[in-house]
Amino acid sequence: MEKYTTNNAINALLNFLQEQSARQVVALTDSNLDALYPHYLDALAQHFSVEKIVVPAGERHKSIEQATAIWQQLLEKQYDKNLVIVNFGGGMICDLGGFVAATYKRGVRCVNFPTTLLAMIDAAIGGKTAVNLDHIKNCVGLIRQPDFVVPADLTLLRTLPESELLSGFGELVKYALIASRPLFDELLHIDNLSAECICPEWISTCVEYKNKIVAIDPDDVKERHVLNFGHTYGHAIESMCAAQGEPIPHGIAVAIGILFECQKAAQEGNFPMEDFLLVEKLIRRHFEIPAYSEALERQLSPYFLQDKKNKNGEVAFVQLSEIGKTRL
Amino acid sequence: MEKYTTNNAINALLNFLQEQSARQVVALTDSNLDALYPHYLDALAQHFSVEKIVVPAGERHKSIEQATAIWQQLLEKQYDKNLVIVNFGGGMICDLGGFVAATYKRGVRCVNFPTTLLAMIDAAIGGKTAVNLDHIKNCVGLIRQPDFVVPADLTLLRTLPESELLSGFGELVKYALIASRPLFDELLHIDNLSAECICPEWISTCVEYKNKIVAIDPDDVKERHVLNFGHTYGHAIESMCAAQGEPIPHGIAVAIGILFECQKAAQEGNFPMEDFLLVEKLIRRHFEIPAYSEALERQLSPYFLQDKKNKNGEVAFVQLSEIGKTRL
Repeated sequence: MEKYTTNNAINALLNFLQEQSARQVVALTDSNLDALYPHYLDALAQHFSVEKIVVPAGERHKSIEQATAIWQQLLEKQYDKNLVIVNFGGGMICDLGGFVAATYKRGVRCVNFPTTLLAMIDAAIGGKTAVNLDHIKNCVGLIRQPDFVVPADLTLLRTLPESELLSGFGELVKYALIASRPLFDELLHIDNLSAECICPEWISTCVEYKNKIVAIDPDDVKERHVLNFGHTYGHAIESMCAAQGEPIPHGIAVAIGILFECQKAAQEGNFPMEDFLLVEKLIRRHFEIPAYSEALERQLSPYFLQDKKNKNGEVAFVQLSEIGKTRL
Repeated sequence: MEKYTTNNAINALLNFLQEQSARQVVALTDSNLDALYPHYLDALAQHFSVEKIVVPAGERHKSIEQATAIWQQLLEKQYDKNLVIVNFGGGMICDLGGFVAATYKRGVRCVNFPTTLLAMIDAAIGGKTAVNLDHIKNCVGLIRQPDFVVPADLTLLRTLPESELLSGFGELVKYALIASRPLFDELLHIDNLSAECICPEWISTCVEYKNKIVAIDPDDVKERHVLNFGHTYGHAIESMCAAQGEPIPHGIAVAIGILFECQKAAQEGNFPMEDFLLVEKLIRRHFEIPAYSEALERQLSPYFLQDKKNKNGEVAFVQLSEIGKTRL
């Protein structure tokens, strides 16, 4: 069977659930995806008792209130520890559903079924679960590996909104910069980003790299921090925009963060200027970048202090030595 | 230094925090304990930056709302991953604070400092953290071992309310029944329960037994279920009383649960009648037991379905073969 197709994804999920002797399955999804693909998971119902829980779409619903509403629905239906929760969605659904699964009755099984580019290459893998609180991104959560990640169905990207595709592209650029100069060079050749541009091999490169790093440092104590390249500024920008009532998708904030962090490093002599110019060329072609200023830096500073990489009050950055290589 | 004293406990805690190079320490406690012992942890402030967070006493405050209030306080003070949370209190504080520590910024270090008999022998050990939701006991939480458990300071029991001492005694009876006939025989000799009755050796017996079982089955998949003896009825009774607005302490519900479960087992020929009569004698001497009836059983049935040991809708019980021995 061909990889990255709908059939392949559904069959992989069915096989996993059968191997696990699952009986009760809850499919968690968001309102956008449910409107686009109301029957996508229908094949499951032939084998298992499946309930669909649909939450409102949007990062602001990745909240404790929403988690509480889901816990209450699960309790009302009297699901026990044998439950399997399938998170069918993007990063928001994987983070929220992963948190609920890790904490409902002290933990039930959890499958991530990523439907966005960002989730396919990043959010669905590695077990970081979280909700936001008071506009602080992912500040409540835990690390708990999903029991299974469904292989990507690239046909789902055709209905992804442009901003969400761009968001995934931001994370794709991150992987290229920390791990693969060849991937970076391929990304440099994209003029107009569309779902059709996304090569299956790029997904594999990111998934394999992330799985490798997570296996070395599952608890995010050291090596795994490289995956946070661009995220010190990225998270601060994302949190600030959300607090100002103008949220932007995660990967777009990360793309801006990457550019700012590379610029800073290049100016300090810690990153080759010629590499910075290539990064700038790639990012500015696809993303609108706000002007960097002292005023912006001051606005961001309270958000830097909430960065989860910080220890003893020091703001931590991941640095590159060149494109495709992180500095130890 | 003598064991089970205030000095011994405080020194053990100081040593641990120094070994860990802790800087920021939050001491979580409840309003009752803070009123009784406002300066108990003052010695910490000579070495670390210590903030005290006091939550209202009582099981009904072991809630998502209370956890949210604590997360918000931690965020406002901009505590980072280097934080150590010290849970100074009974089972409610250990469960709530353990849940907050396991989920704040995806997990910070956590110390349990048990101040009640129940917490000393049970709740502070083993890493079960939780909050209640809609009167369902401990239905949201996770298993995460504390980084340190402070050895018991038995002098704290002198100010423990009678009902709380009785609650701890209920769990003490449980340990005797699942693990130690000699302990059971000693407990049989107590006429009037008071803090002075509690032998240090009993604490050690329970702590060592629980540590042993938790090491074998930290995730509560099989062997650890023995610690839930009496808890199928116990949790259902506790949840029902809470839902009726007349909450009873956990260990008192467990004592009632033990009696009902032993009676059932004895009637079914699965537990020696002479052992049941001894259990009944011990429990009725200290606890007020509601009359068992079909009506009560019907009232309890919806709560049985929420038991976390259940799988595939079957209500699970732990059974004894005789006093001091569980049935495999």
